[in-house]
Amino acid sequence: MKKSIVWLFLVPLCAFSQEPAKSIHTDSSRSPQWTELLSSKKGIPWKVRKAVLHGGKQDGVELIEVDNGSLCFQVIPTRGMGILAVQRDSTRFGWNSPVKEVVHPKYVNLQARGGLGWLDGFNEMMCRCGLENNGGPGKDRFINNVGDEATMDLTLHGKIANIPASKVEVFANPNPPFDIHVKGVVHERMFYGPKLELQVDISTTPGSHTIKLSETVTNRGALEQEFELLYHSNYGAPLLEEGARFLAPVAQVTPINENAAKANESYPSYQGPTAGFTEQVYCLRLNAGNDGFTEALLVNSKGALAAGIRYRVKELPYFTLWKNTSAVEEGYVTGLEPGTNFPRPRNVEREHGRVPKLKGGETRNFELDFFFLTQADEVQSAKERIAAIQGKRKPVVDISPEK
Amino acid sequence: MKKSIVWLFLVPLCAFSQEPAKSIHTDSSRSPQWTELLSSKKGIPWKVRKAVLHGGKQDGVELIEVDNGSLCFQVIPTRGMGILAVQRDSTRFGWNSPVKEVVHPKYVNLQARGGLGWLDGFNEMMCRCGLENNGGPGKDRFINNVGDEATMDLTLHGKIANIPASKVEVFANPNPPFDIHVKGVVHERMFYGPKLELQVDISTTPGSHTIKLSETVTNRGALEQEFELLYHSNYGAPLLEEGARFLAPVAQVTPINENAAKANESYPSYQGPTAGFTEQVYCLRLNAGNDGFTEALLVNSKGALAAGIRYRVKELPYFTLWKNTSAVEEGYVTGLEPGTNFPRPRNVEREHGRVPKLKGGETRNFELDFFFLTQADEVQSAKERIAAIQGKRKPVVDISPEK
Amino acid sequence: MKKSIVWLFLVPLCAFSQEPAKSIHTDSSRSPQWTELLSSKKGIPWKVRKAVLHGGKQDGVELIEVDNGSLCFQVIPTRGMGILAVQRDSTRFGWNSPVKEVVHPKYVNLQARGGLGWLDGFNEMMCRCGLENNGGPGKDRFINNVGDEATMDLTLHGKIANIPASKVEVFANPNPPFDIHVKGVVHERMFYGPKLELQVDISTTPGSHTIKLSETVTNRGALEQEFELLYHSNYGAPLLEEGARFLAPVAQVTPINENAAKANESYPSYQGPTAGFTEQVYCLRLNAGNDGFTEALLVNSKGALAAGIRYRVKELPYFTLWKNTSAVEEGYVTGLEPGTNFPRPRNVEREHGRVPKLKGGETRNFELDFFFLTQADEVQSAKERIAAIQGKRKPVVDISPEK
Repeated sequence: MKKSIVWLFLVPLCAFSQEPAKSIHTDSSRSPQWTELLSSKKGIPWKVRKAVLHGGKQDGVELIEVDNGSLCFQVIPTRGMGILAVQRDSTRFGWNSPVKEVVHPKYVNLQARGGLGWLDGFNEMMCRCGLENNGGPGKDRFINNVGDEATMDLTLHGKIANIPASKVEVFANPNPPFDIHVKGVVHERMFYGPKLELQVDISTTPGSHTIKLSETVTNRGALEQEFELLYHSNYGAPLLEEGARFLAPVAQVTPINENAAKANESYPSYQGPTAGFTEQVYCLRLNAGNDGFTEALLVNSKGALAAGIRYRVKELPYFTLWKNTSAVEEGYVTGLEPGTNFPRPRNVEREHGRVPKLKGGETRNFELDFFFLTQADEVQSAKERIAAIQGKRKPVVDISPEK
Repeated sequence: MKKSIVWLFLVPLCAFSQEPAKSIHTDSSRSPQWTELLSSKKGIPWKVRKAVLHGGKQDGVELIEVDNGSLCFQVIPTRGMGILAVQRDSTRFGWNSPVKEVVHPKYVNLQARGGLGWLDGFNEMMCRCGLENNGGPGKDRFINNVGDEATMDLTLHGKIANIPASKVEVFANPNPPFDIHVKGVVHERMFYGPKLELQVDISTTPGSHTIKLSETVTNRGALEQEFELLYHSNYGAPLLEEGARFLAPVAQVTPINENAAKANESYPSYQGPTAGFTEQVYCLRLNAGNDGFTEALLVNSKGALAAGIRYRVKELPYFTLWKNTSAVEEGYVTGLEPGTNFPRPRNVEREHGRVPKLKGGETRNFELDFFFLTQADEVQSAKERIAAIQGKRKPVVDISPEK
Repeated sequence: MKKSIVWLFLVPLCAFSQEPAKSIHTDSSRSPQWTELLSSKKGIPWKVRKAVLHGGKQDGVELIEVDNGSLCFQVIPTRGMGILAVQRDSTRFGWNSPVKEVVHPKYVNLQARGGLGWLDGFNEMMCRCGLENNGGPGKDRFINNVGDEATMDLTLHGKIANIPASKVEVFANPNPPFDIHVKGVVHERMFYGPKLELQVDISTTPGSHTIKLSETVTNRGALEQEFELLYHSNYGAPLLEEGARFLAPVAQVTPINENAAKANESYPSYQGPTAGFTEQVYCLRLNAGNDGFTEALLVNSKGALAAGIRYRVKELPYFTLWKNTSAVEEGYVTGLEPGTNFPRPRNVEREHGRVPKLKGGETRNFELDFFFLTQADEVQSAKERIAAIQGKRKPVVDISPEK
């Protein structure tokens, strides 16, 4: 008797507690399966590993993750050797884009939405914009195969962030400083068009807080070729917050449009997330120190977190500050963007003499350090370096956009 | 002697009868290799299996096939969780599109052919049209990143049918009614654009003749966002045939254009395949029963086969009847399409107040039953349910298209 | 003491000679991993093998390589059954496009750059242009789904070279002449659009110097359908060089534009690589011999190397000679291109009555031999065959382009 009563209870309990027969096939939000490529043999522990993502629009995307013992970051060979995000200790540098997956270029139609299709995949901490053009979409002239002037639709920020690398190498220097390298080659080449080659060397020293980019752009064609390159580095919370500030040795600042001009005075400081905020973009010329280098810094409100870039002004003479402190769900983010040009449509940049050219076979070098600070004293030092570059020079702040 | 004569004959015979050395690599028409995911342990035998397609434009497409013991159908995670076709006993429900393969989105350029690129992949029994827009292509306004009104090219029926699901789960309820579920999440999200999330739960009860869709669309952005959703369910032969009829509790029917208006009187009845037939589209408002549900039915000429949809009019207030009784080779098909709107370009629908909006974080639910009838008594019951909903109400038949 | 001195030397020496820890992941320029499919059992040794390419824009592209014991060539199922290049002995026939990878169609947006996106993948020795259209980009009319005349953007050279084959078979005839076949089916079909099917049979006889194409285009739709097909065969160095010459039994030659008209007199002869050279295109009608066949030949300066095509003039009545003797880095190349039409925009070709139509279900056949000569006597024979076809007929050379 007793036994059957027990069963009466057990059966329904069992039924409700039982997991349904289940089979999860795809979940793009799950951590991928990593394969270790290289790791330290002694000294500071570091490792490099690789994964292929699955599910949704990220299916087939390759990531290479470098953990130098202090910084951990992911390079995306499938997306033109961009850098997805950087982690130092408990702080993640990068941003929370509404685009959650690492989108495979096969799902990006750059021409969609009036040339804004690039936005379908934009979520990196750092991606390159170029190489034939970057900046806003629009019509531009070019010489076509029959020698006639024809019209093309420039697409936002060009192709390079959506071209997979053709060659990728990972290696570690066995000698001091034992730096770890992820090298890649990305070709933006076509028949009757640009034949530009980007060579990327992303390196870091074990235990350091810096990612070094050493890059070249080469014109593999025989004829002179325009190009544009902009390093779109992007930060959201926790670094970006109300009271966060932008610091750099500024020579001149020009609002990109009337909307930015309205907020000219507060351009180096940030609001918290603000629903309905419209982007404010400032075109800056930075001063360089005696060594030709400049630094730009984003500091949180308490001066305890910062991300910075160090590079040669001669290599990247134009710096764009993109402020997009909109609602968190829309993408609360700011961009620090050194470039060969400002991100206006190429025809506009050409008129202002800001579209460089490469002769057939010519190469141009770009070197940038991205550094990630989580200690107040580190931040203080960086601020002092910027103050030292600036010296007594005063920035010119233009009231109106460039014509 | 005799032996050598035999040989003389055997050698050439052998040579001619011999199959050539052969190696078939790719054949997109061959049945794929299936992997069983789940199956019944007792009771009505059912199973769920999975395959990845190869060859041609279907390379890499994933199918999940559910056989509930009575109905067998294929869900396409790679194409936004559409349903390819449904088999009940010896009857296949769906249609024979001139598009034979299950086309991978990487081969679809929605902007091709003046915004009609969607037609390169259209062959499902049921696919969703949306989410940012559905309906015809055309220019529409939107607010771009710099806060300006800009122009975009709407593409036919939007993106959702060509976005791969980011998360797919298959499970079976261990309790009565032991329903089998294929759940999926599809993100239509971009930076500076819609952040819409479609959650799909396609389920069926073992032995039943019904596929249930329980779905949500959520605005994951912070700002109010328009959306459009239309369930494009499509049937060809054998259900569709000369003398087949459409039945529904119709409140109002409006031809979409002059071509449809010419055939107003015969709108619920179908011709056989007719080369050169130009599509006729009717915009319908359906009456609901007391429970808020309506039903729409396509019945073959003898009343022995039918496919129907049951859903809440409040959730999907506009119903489109698409008649395309062209030649078999061109796609002999009709569409029963409940939607949040009619499939006219979004700017037109907006003018008529038929483009719903979701506040930031807001979710809307959609529940639909698709049922497949192969018995005359089942068909009769369905007809009676429609008659009961209609009651004594008479449909208004508009002579002319909406302005 | 001595030991420590030794160490002082050994350590740096060791450190410098040591290879860094390294891991190469991707290198699109490395030879792929081949799998043998078929090979000769006796007689002339031949083999067929297959590879899938990795890295960059060629990721996922399938190649089938046929080595007939004399000629070795690669068929690209992923790119519409084009032929990448041909090797005979030490001579490579084909060209060095600035596009170095065998580009997967998922990376080609035909609509890019004002409809010139096809150029992102163009590097084959032979690719087909069509099937809905070929030739230059531009606007053309078509009848859309609602029966209205609509406008579409034609894209350069159409879709067929960027559609993966749906069915691929490799087989070898066990009987004389033991010919090796690579067959493929490529569908250019959509709903409310063309339903064209290309059946390809690429074959070669072991030890021969010829690749035979036996092909059909079928209209799988019910309605009459225009189509265009052009065989774009392309040669660079070493065959193309200063002093190389084009030979064919020419009935009429018309420059395609004013730029070509300027160089009318020297149209059959070639310059060396010339930076800044603008393409010169000539529209030719060729004479046929009594058997209906014609031949066209490209011969190097010494008459020791040649590549030729033999085909029926009735099948391909229009021949285009494309001269692009630009700098090596830009693509030093000439194209010998028999077609159903000249490569002007389809609307122009239609006006001149050069766009053929297929009735529903109708098939048209195309047979072409591509031959590759590396012996002076072979070249001499080919020249003599052309002279014999021409006989005493004189070519008409038009001074001006067609209106």
